[in-house]
This record gives sequence, structure tokens and C-alpha cells, in this order.
Amino acid sequence: VNAPSLVTQSVLLADDAVRILDRRVFPFQRTWVTCRTYEDVAVAIEQMVTQSLGPLHAAAAGMVLAARAADRLPASSRVEYLAAAGARLVATRPTNNHIRDVITELLAGAHPDAAAMEQAATGLIERHQAGWRRLGTAAAALLRDGDTILTHCWAETYLTETVAAAQRDGKQLRALCTETRPYLQGARLTAESLAEMGVPTELITDGMAGHFLAGGEVSAFLSGADRVTMDGHVVNKIGTLPIAVCAHAFGVPFYPLVSGPDPQSPTAASVPIEERDGDEVLHCLGTRTASALVTGRYPAFDVTPPRFVSAVVTDRGAYSPYNLASYVDNSSRRAEAARQASSNPT
Amino acid sequence: VNAPSLVTQSVLLADDAVRILDRRVFPFQRTWVTCRTYEDVAVAIEQMVTQSLGPLHAAAAGMVLAARAADRLPASSRVEYLAAAGARLVATRPTNNHIRDVITELLAGAHPDAAAMEQAATGLIERHQAGWRRLGTAAAALLRDGDTILTHCWAETYLTETVAAAQRDGKQLRALCTETRPYLQGARLTAESLAEMGVPTELITDGMAGHFLAGGEVSAFLSGADRVTMDGHVVNKIGTLPIAVCAHAFGVPFYPLVSGPDPQSPTAASVPIEERDGDEVLHCLGTRTASALVTGRYPAFDVTPPRFVSAVVTDRGAYSPYNLASYVDNSSRRAEAARQASSNPT
Repeated sequence: VNAPSLVTQSVLLADDAVRILDRRVFPFQRTWVTCRTYEDVAVAIEQMVTQSLGPLHAAAAGMVLAARAADRLPASSRVEYLAAAGARLVATRPTNNHIRDVITELLAGAHPDAAAMEQAATGLIERHQAGWRRLGTAAAALLRDGDTILTHCWAETYLTETVAAAQRDGKQLRALCTETRPYLQGARLTAESLAEMGVPTELITDGMAGHFLAGGEVSAFLSGADRVTMDGHVVNKIGTLPIAVCAHAFGVPFYPLVSGPDPQSPTAASVPIEERDGDEVLHCLGTRTASALVTGRYPAFDVTPPRFVSAVVTDRGAYSPYNLASYVDNSSRRAEAARQASSNPT
Repeated sequence: VNAPSLVTQSVLLADDAVRILDRRVFPFQRTWVTCRTYEDVAVAIEQMVTQSLGPLHAAAAGMVLAARAADRLPASSRVEYLAAAGARLVATRPTNNHIRDVITELLAGAHPDAAAMEQAATGLIERHQAGWRRLGTAAAALLRDGDTILTHCWAETYLTETVAAAQRDGKQLRALCTETRPYLQGARLTAESLAEMGVPTELITDGMAGHFLAGGEVSAFLSGADRVTMDGHVVNKIGTLPIAVCAHAFGVPFYPLVSGPDPQSPTAASVPIEERDGDEVLHCLGTRTASALVTGRYPAFDVTPPRFVSAVVTDRGAYSPYNLASYVDNSSRRAEAARQASSNPT
């Protein structure tokens, strides 16, 4: 099984720049946006050149660009410059907590020069990749051979690792993908990538999910999550909520996939929901869909309450949305065990 | 208050042809498809030149074209020719019961020539228009000044009469319209027509309905219905079901608008759900949305169970979805009263 190109070749760190695959036109065009500064990276994230887990990769690479620029500055201004770069990148998109976490981690370390920053960024990505692989294994364990999964938007490595783990276990899956308006990530990214992985893949409009959930054709609804609060609210791409509500109404499990819940978000009220330009709703692939008499609205995310969530699948396994504290408790226990192991070598 | 052009000028019966406004390109182009035979009308309906209540008008006009052609045939073949025309028109789209009802009524009368058929067709339309006006009055009675209605697809005269009745009562409404993929009737027909009527109108993608229902911004969800079964299942444009399920989950009433339930459809099992070409899902306004690796699915309608329906609003008022028999009972009583009145003149 090969990982789809969208996952393996999406954000590339070169000596002179970061190159980001332009997901706004994929798969019809495979073009790259070249970012020579962290500001270029920030603008690319804001303009949706990349999304889903793409900004996590892009933010890490953007900090390497910032560190290279900082190497050319007086040493006294290095820390301030990197902090400003990090703040700029965090400000690009407020809802997903990945960028914040990446920047926090990379700023916390010493990283005296760009080489050290690049090493830290690479290590961070590799650690996440190992976590996504564990997440995929845990999610695949919830699926059976012959299942049809329903997807919304593009859950990136969360989804491809789930499919890869299922395939390793000899489980053949089918997929129904919502197209995911207004950017059509489901049609252009998810359907394309699953088909590349050999999964029989059918595309539906966003409004069709209810019909297929009611009809008994869907085994599970899988999505990513931009943020999961400690009280079990799943913040994800707009359109996730109605599918989750229908899945619940018709007895189909909903498994949001996310590295882990966000300890800094106790409730849904603590998550800012990004409002994008409503004009984007009035177009489809650049073609205007409504006349000038009409205005558009574009909340980019919706919030699914825990009563519609079957299990949150993380890099530590599947958790009830009502028991996410145990994810963090495990984390605390591991950190404590590691601390004791290092301070009390036996 | 002016009725929007899409309602007043949609199917025009001329001496030489029926002209049908091409809703596939409205409002960006206002072009007409000329149908010189009932077969032309049938093809236009199949190809979605018109939809919602458009096929009701088109089928009635198509029978006038058939009657004109029959006037040029030997009298002995007239009945057979008209029956064949009616069967062809009924076969165009199976889910909505309006075409069937129009054809049944027009074939039941004697209508010895085209002039008589045209008179019957005109009377039928006028009777329906009066019914839609009563429906609009009944639906508007469920709304309050300042309400925001959420719409899906294009509920045609059902919706415009509701808005007109509310406006007559001094109730100002706002509207959130789903765009309604894959044909974007919500963006192109509903949003346009409501804006023409002076309703502040905002467009959202189909997946956003859940967010706005959960957020408390929507007062009521209004849709048309292609068919309502006697046991309260609402068959309507694909995408209605998830909105209805969300409306129920978040305490917003769902009022499907329809002339009346179909006495010939006791349950949802008795309604054929049209499957259209999945290729239509792979395009938006003619632009391809997914690569050739992907196939599309296109069930044209979904079925909302009565537990998600607040009231079915008909030309005789609002009915519980669990008490639609009383609509037909009223009909039987009225027919009986009319029969007795005519047979026992006092």
C-alpha cells in the first residue's frame, strides 16, 4: 500500500524555501507555492493553500525559515524575532490548535541556530507521524472487513493511516466521500487520495450523507477534528455536525480522529470559530453560483456535542467523549514516569 | 409585493409551443426551451429544464400540445393518443406525484378538442394556485415578525405564497438558503426569488444548516415536498433529511409545504426514489469537481420520517404528520357534501 501523494508530498523544506502543494487546485493541477519567509508561509496558510494537517507541517517549516533569517540578525534580537514569527503563524487560523502547539514546542526549546531548529522541527514531525500511525491502528480496530466508511472534508494522515492499518489487517474498505463545499476538499483531496490507495470510492454531495446513513449503507462516519475540547465537543470542518447528528439518529457510529483533546480548551466556549469571507460561498471552483442580490455566510467550522460522538480516536487509542480527562491523565502519568526514570536511574 | 419572475414566468403556453424557462442556467441567463410536442416537454422535464412545481405546469401545458396534435388525427385514435401522451409525461420523473395527478385529472375529463383541454388545464392550474395561496396563509400563520427561515432547494409557489402572506400580515422575514447541490437551486432559484421579494437573503452551503440550527439563529425550517405519504414521511430533494434531523435535535420546527399528502402512498415504501446519473455529482455548473479516479452517486430525493416533522402545511392548513388521514377525510366529506348538494338541490 502506498501513501497517497497528497500526504507524502505536501510541504517540502528546501535550502532556499518551503514549497507547499497548492491544495486549492489539486488534483487538477499539481502546483507548488514557494514561501521564502515565514510571512509567505503565514499568508499561504491564511489563503488555504494547505489545510487539515498541512498547516502543522507548514508552521514547523515556517519556523525553520524564521530561524535561518534569525541567524543573520544580531544574537540579541534572535529570541524576539522567533517569538514574533511564531505569533504571526499562530494568528493565521484560530480554530485548529495544531499550529499553536507546534509553535509553542519549537519556541520552548533553546535551538541556538537554524540547524538546531530544523532538527527540532524534524523530530516534532516524526513524533507526530508515529502518533498518527498509532491513531490509525486504533481506528482500524473499530472497523470490520467490508465496511463502508463515510468521510467529510480531508482528514489527511489520520484517515490514510486508518486505511493503511485496515489494509495491513486484511480489511477491505469502501468509501463514500462528501464533496465538502465550498472548497470541495472531499471531492479533490479525500476521494482522490483514497482512490489512490485502492479504496473503491464514491462521491456524494454534502446533503446526501443523511440518505446513506438512513439507508444502512454506512458502517461508520470518520472525520478529522480541528480541535476536541476536554468536555467532548468536536470542532471540525463545517458540515461535520449534521452528519454526526444523522449518524446518531440512524445508529451509525461517529469516530472523530485527532491526535488528542486540547487541554487548553475545557469547553466549546473556549474555541474561536473562524468566520471566513462569505464571498467564498458564492463561488464554486471560481464560478459564481448566485447573483449579486445574494450575500454569503461562511463559518468555517461547526461544533458537534459529545452526545453525537461515539469515540474520539487518538494517538493513545479510542476514548469516550465523556472521559477525555483520562487521555491527559495518561499523559501526566507518562511524563511523571519519565521524570522519575531520569532522576532516579537504577 | 411582487411575485418573483421565476414563479410568474416559468411555463408559457403559446399558440405554437410551450416555452419553459431554463432553470438550469437561471438567473445568469434567462433563456427559454421551446417545446413543440408533448415529447419535447417530457424531455425538458427529464433534463431538469424545470423542476419543483414547474413540471406540474409543464405537464398540463404538454397535454394541451397533445390535444392539439390529436385534433389532427382521426377521432377514433384520440383517446389512445392522449393516454400515450399522459403516460409519457408521467414517466419522466417518478418521485413527485404532481405530474401523475395532473395527467390523471386531464385524462379523466371528456375534453373533446384542444380548446376544451386548454380550458381544463387552465382551470386546474387556477385551482392549484388558489390552493397554494391558502397553503401560504397557513404557513405564514406559523411564523412571527422577525423570524429567520431556513430553506432547502426551491419550494416555488409554496414558499413565495408563504412569504407573500407573511408580508401582507406585516411580518418581516429573513432567509438563510442552502445552495442545494448538485444543481444549486437554492443559490440560483430560491435565494434569487426571495431577494426579489425584498427578503434579506443569505446563502450557505448545504453542510452549514446544522451550525445555524444549533446556534439559535433559525426560527423554522421550510421546504417543499415532492410527496408526503399518508404515514407522514416527507419525500423531498436530497439534503432535506439531514436538515430536518438537525432541526429536531436543536428544537427548531420543520414545516414541509405541499398541496396535500398522497392518498396513493400509504408508506414510504410505496414511493420510488429517482436515481439520477452520478456524473452530475462530479460537476458544479459544468466544471468537473473530482478526478476520473472517482465515481458519483445521485439519489435525487431523501425521505424524512414523521418524528422529524413538526407539521405538514397543506392547502387545507397545517396537519400533524401522524394525522394526515384527516386531510383526506376532509376531502371525502367535502366531495360528499358537494355530491349531495348537486343531487339534492333545495
